[in-house]
Amino acid sequence: MIKVGIIGSTGYAGGELVRILTGHKEAEIVWYGSRSYVDQRYADVYQNMFQIVDAKCMDDNMEELARRADVIFTATPQGLCASLVNEAILSETKIIDLSADFRIKDVSVYEKWYGIEHKSPRYIEEAVYGLCEINREDVRRARLVANPGCYTTCSILTAYPLAKEGIIDMSTLIVDAKSGTSGAGRGAKLPNLFCEVNENMKAYGVTSHRHTPEIEEQLGYASGEKVVINFTPHLVPMNRGILATEYASLKKDVSWSYVKEIYDKYYQKEKFVRVLDEGVLPETKWVEGSNYVDINFKIDPRTNRIIMMGAIDNLVKGAAGQAVQNMNLMFGLDESEGLNLVPMFP
Amino acid sequence: MIKVGIIGSTGYAGGELVRILTGHKEAEIVWYGSRSYVDQRYADVYQNMFQIVDAKCMDDNMEELARRADVIFTATPQGLCASLVNEAILSETKIIDLSADFRIKDVSVYEKWYGIEHKSPRYIEEAVYGLCEINREDVRRARLVANPGCYTTCSILTAYPLAKEGIIDMSTLIVDAKSGTSGAGRGAKLPNLFCEVNENMKAYGVTSHRHTPEIEEQLGYASGEKVVINFTPHLVPMNRGILATEYASLKKDVSWSYVKEIYDKYYQKEKFVRVLDEGVLPETKWVEGSNYVDINFKIDPRTNRIIMMGAIDNLVKGAAGQAVQNMNLMFGLDESEGLNLVPMFP
Amino acid sequence: MIKVGIIGSTGYAGGELVRILTGHKEAEIVWYGSRSYVDQRYADVYQNMFQIVDAKCMDDNMEELARRADVIFTATPQGLCASLVNEAILSETKIIDLSADFRIKDVSVYEKWYGIEHKSPRYIEEAVYGLCEINREDVRRARLVANPGCYTTCSILTAYPLAKEGIIDMSTLIVDAKSGTSGAGRGAKLPNLFCEVNENMKAYGVTSHRHTPEIEEQLGYASGEKVVINFTPHLVPMNRGILATEYASLKKDVSWSYVKEIYDKYYQKEKFVRVLDEGVLPETKWVEGSNYVDINFKIDPRTNRIIMMGAIDNLVKGAAGQAVQNMNLMFGLDESEGLNLVPMFP
Amino acid sequence: MIKVGIIGSTGYAGGELVRILTGHKEAEIVWYGSRSYVDQRYADVYQNMFQIVDAKCMDDNMEELARRADVIFTATPQGLCASLVNEAILSETKIIDLSADFRIKDVSVYEKWYGIEHKSPRYIEEAVYGLCEINREDVRRARLVANPGCYTTCSILTAYPLAKEGIIDMSTLIVDAKSGTSGAGRGAKLPNLFCEVNENMKAYGVTSHRHTPEIEEQLGYASGEKVVINFTPHLVPMNRGILATEYASLKKDVSWSYVKEIYDKYYQKEKFVRVLDEGVLPETKWVEGSNYVDINFKIDPRTNRIIMMGAIDNLVKGAAGQAVQNMNLMFGLDESEGLNLVPMFP
Repeated sequence: MIKVGIIGSTGYAGGELVRILTGHKEAEIVWYGSRSYVDQRYADVYQNMFQIVDAKCMDDNMEELARRADVIFTATPQGLCASLVNEAILSETKIIDLSADFRIKDVSVYEKWYGIEHKSPRYIEEAVYGLCEINREDVRRARLVANPGCYTTCSILTAYPLAKEGIIDMSTLIVDAKSGTSGAGRGAKLPNLFCEVNENMKAYGVTSHRHTPEIEEQLGYASGEKVVINFTPHLVPMNRGILATEYASLKKDVSWSYVKEIYDKYYQKEKFVRVLDEGVLPETKWVEGSNYVDINFKIDPRTNRIIMMGAIDNLVKGAAGQAVQNMNLMFGLDESEGLNLVPMFP
Repeated sequence: MIKVGIIGSTGYAGGELVRILTGHKEAEIVWYGSRSYVDQRYADVYQNMFQIVDAKCMDDNMEELARRADVIFTATPQGLCASLVNEAILSETKIIDLSADFRIKDVSVYEKWYGIEHKSPRYIEEAVYGLCEINREDVRRARLVANPGCYTTCSILTAYPLAKEGIIDMSTLIVDAKSGTSGAGRGAKLPNLFCEVNENMKAYGVTSHRHTPEIEEQLGYASGEKVVINFTPHLVPMNRGILATEYASLKKDVSWSYVKEIYDKYYQKEKFVRVLDEGVLPETKWVEGSNYVDINFKIDPRTNRIIMMGAIDNLVKGAAGQAVQNMNLMFGLDESEGLNLVPMFP
Repeated sequence: MIKVGIIGSTGYAGGELVRILTGHKEAEIVWYGSRSYVDQRYADVYQNMFQIVDAKCMDDNMEELARRADVIFTATPQGLCASLVNEAILSETKIIDLSADFRIKDVSVYEKWYGIEHKSPRYIEEAVYGLCEINREDVRRARLVANPGCYTTCSILTAYPLAKEGIIDMSTLIVDAKSGTSGAGRGAKLPNLFCEVNENMKAYGVTSHRHTPEIEEQLGYASGEKVVINFTPHLVPMNRGILATEYASLKKDVSWSYVKEIYDKYYQKEKFVRVLDEGVLPETKWVEGSNYVDINFKIDPRTNRIIMMGAIDNLVKGAAGQAVQNMNLMFGLDESEGLNLVPMFP
Repeated sequence: MIKVGIIGSTGYAGGELVRILTGHKEAEIVWYGSRSYVDQRYADVYQNMFQIVDAKCMDDNMEELARRADVIFTATPQGLCASLVNEAILSETKIIDLSADFRIKDVSVYEKWYGIEHKSPRYIEEAVYGLCEINREDVRRARLVANPGCYTTCSILTAYPLAKEGIIDMSTLIVDAKSGTSGAGRGAKLPNLFCEVNENMKAYGVTSHRHTPEIEEQLGYASGEKVVINFTPHLVPMNRGILATEYASLKKDVSWSYVKEIYDKYYQKEKFVRVLDEGVLPETKWVEGSNYVDINFKIDPRTNRIIMMGAIDNLVKGAAGQAVQNMNLMFGLDESEGLNLVPMFP
């Protein structure tokens, strides 16, 4: 059994890690880290785990954790993982970081968008960007994985094959994304109160959301050119789900089948990416609770643009599910172990 | 592998059966019955099943189905199962009926509350009321199980130990229940439109809801007396979940621990019934997606009443989950096979 | 023009006062009190008021406010109004207190249920309980009005005529109430986050909610006997609305028409109380945004109980609307001035 | 008093017309048309109108209606108004058509996008496109007004000043719009059921939504060039509200203040258009229940694009409110009569 430690286990992503790992046959959680709830029973924080999890929450003792755990998930605010990681720890355990600390290769870009100093820049190079479908082999060999952001996972996978194959003009790419409210975390903040979110819809972080450079970097690798995009996130009155609607100009005349073949080339063997049938558009509810990414597209001959759409559960494929997928790869397990989660409808 | 046929597989309860059975190690679905969608791919009706279920929907051919399936789930409107069942069928297959046809032993009570003639009264006596925690041994031997209603499962289990032990005055029992909207089914009716339900709350079926006699009958068996109650269902703007708030006068002076012990006597060994810690009240979200019933209570010395509260997911423990639990019992499997569903939060 | 000051204008009830008074022809707000947002533009806190309200938020200077305003609304936490009121202030201005400080005549009951010491017990006797439909004449003459609680307004008005006429056995009265989340206020607390409330339903404050003694006191006056009830509030995933479902044993054999006549005796001339047609049950959405109370009932001959149901918008008739109705009475205006708010659907 | 007839008064837009006109001082409704509910009391269909509206629903007798009413609102499916209008009717009454029949000047474009034959093409030329802020003078003189679509009102007003002033490259304009579910109407259709919409988000009508040519035509007039855009609507789990996020490349280097001045040039005197302060992004909840359009924008120097955002209540400014605004103009009344609706929050 793989021994798992979680730092930040009482946030929404941390809670989802616990839910998923509870059903994982080859892993057991040995450390429920949570600064805010030290010594409280985990099931008192997340009552759904009553009679399922008996453990108490523990403090963030990275050294002891490294000794006890084969892998540590850090589901913590930006900067924490970078401040904790060091050679001693990486020599004893693997780390899957759900924060942004090791996602961006250019430290100055990280520091500019996140507004904080990076405390461990020397591990950036080593860290593997854990988008399994794209970096699978590197993930297998990694000891430090940067788990991608929720918006980025959805945005990148939706456009990746077309960027890679040079079908779209990358300078025209616009990503208009919509997210459920769990993406904002479990902090008690006024804008996340029920009455502020319910029956409401808004854009936020326009031109400045931190997932922008992450999308740009990855799609830059795919397309082989520098990519600069508009990324606009929106808050939707629902718990879970991200829908990305992406627009780009086509570089040549293509048919639906032609584009579908390109998607199939990259995704047909991917268990967790479902390219839908013609005319069926992704809906977040169809992937809720699961690790799937549902993708489809429409070509508009009137404007010569393609509209790509992707849907994920932000807490699963956008966070905890992908983290477990990465863990499976890193430990040589079946990639889908623990992730055979059938979407729940309604 | 147990071969399973589902009649009514495209309703919400039918869909939940498919979701649960997809993860069941000892069962496989061989017949996705759906009058409305015959010959359409099941995954075209429920897109969450894309690339998971390949089958097409089939008509209700009970004879052929009986030959092909070891067990048939009927997730159909009232009256249909009663009109289809006969000796030939029951000699070839087992039936778990999710409708109300075989729940009520007194056919005149059934016909009065449901307003339809019962087509197979002779099987009522044989049918076992499939509330596993109460009728476990009978279920094991049954060939026809009447799967309890959603409201009734929650209402009965919440009060059962106190009724059984004679702690409460049954003539004072009042059940005020609240349900998510999936309980209303997938029919395209105006009152179930999003804009009619969202941001709204109402009682319905006051004094006349069909689950009333079912609760009365079962709690009558438990208490050994004729039980007549007020049961008031309410529609809540959420997809899933039932919360039952039940009021009864206490027949003697009791403490919280005393009552807790009574609950524990009946439920401590029950995997799917969780009697919560003192002061922790059930919330529907803590059981969502799972087969759990969460129960707790408060004693009010001012009024000498006890307020019992129970929460379930109406589509799981209130329908499909309990049906699978019944199936497991009928086929001698581990009762929780396929039902190790961790509640999803948020 | 009546000059109005509001202390606590940036809570949800305060915001609703501003919304309603903006459309009031005889009143103008001269003081937007808000400790948390002093010197900030009111419209920056409630962006809906952009280009409608130009004023800035001000501190709680009760003395200056008393000089400037003809009436002060205190939409503040329990205890604040009691700590601020004195003879000098009451000689200069009228006060409508939306907190519970002056609702309960027995100070020991107040202190027990609210857990705080009352700072101005000498004004309790003078204060008028501002349930307009019941205490209209007293309200007209009052200088200090205790504006009823949201749950209490709904609970009392729903049962009042039957309590008053002695039709129901008061010792059997049970009030099961359901409220939208705005009743919990605008404080940034974890249990009120969107993801905690959405898709969830729970009871809270069972046997201990502070509105209990308020309902008991008022229905005690109506029935002429000491009343002790069970009151159980529930949190519903919607912004606005309270639905009270009330149960009581009938003291005699009555018909629907007979009871309807009793309701009509008290409410036929009341603009804001609508006793619905037979068979039409109250829904919170039908009163949203308005000052209406919708009421109906069902008689159950099986149990000899009557089930009464009432619906209000908790922020209007349950708070700000009723406060304005009280103000209109106190200043000799048309009782419905500013309150001709047509319910918004959907 | 202006006598108003409504055809289609029991749809959501029709219901909103009734709500607004109930508070209009110079208008009274004389005809509540509704094919589906003929002879039923209007308040039985919309219970919020109980004791407010006494009338019964009537059939669509356009001739009699023309005699009785000074103005007819047609809130009906596409094609109906065009099939009913004729010279006799227009000589007796004015018509404000909330359907799309007279919005598009090129009949072939209408017939292509709507897939129906236009029955009264000769009135297309005469009909005035009732976007008050843009066509105010023409509306005053009109006898037939084509009330704009909900998405179009929001999409056009958000981009209009920049299109008109030539600041943006119209060939790059992309409109990504999000709407509450009331926009889908009150028809009992499966995709609009609560459980299908709640906790879900999807795009629909991608590249083919009928509001596309309407936006293109109007922004074509504004910019003086042929406009072809991508317009992508999305369904959001909320009752009311449209948010349009619009992207376009800037034709020159501009600052926020420069663009703000352009917006102010067109909207500073417009009561119902609120250009927000820098950094404050529109949210649908801030305009709910009101006739406001809230607009703001962000400039992205990285991509040389401007992101414009606009929010409306789809049933008010997007339908009934704008229709009343048009009526006010056509009858020489104060343009905001009946429309002083303060947004409701929360």
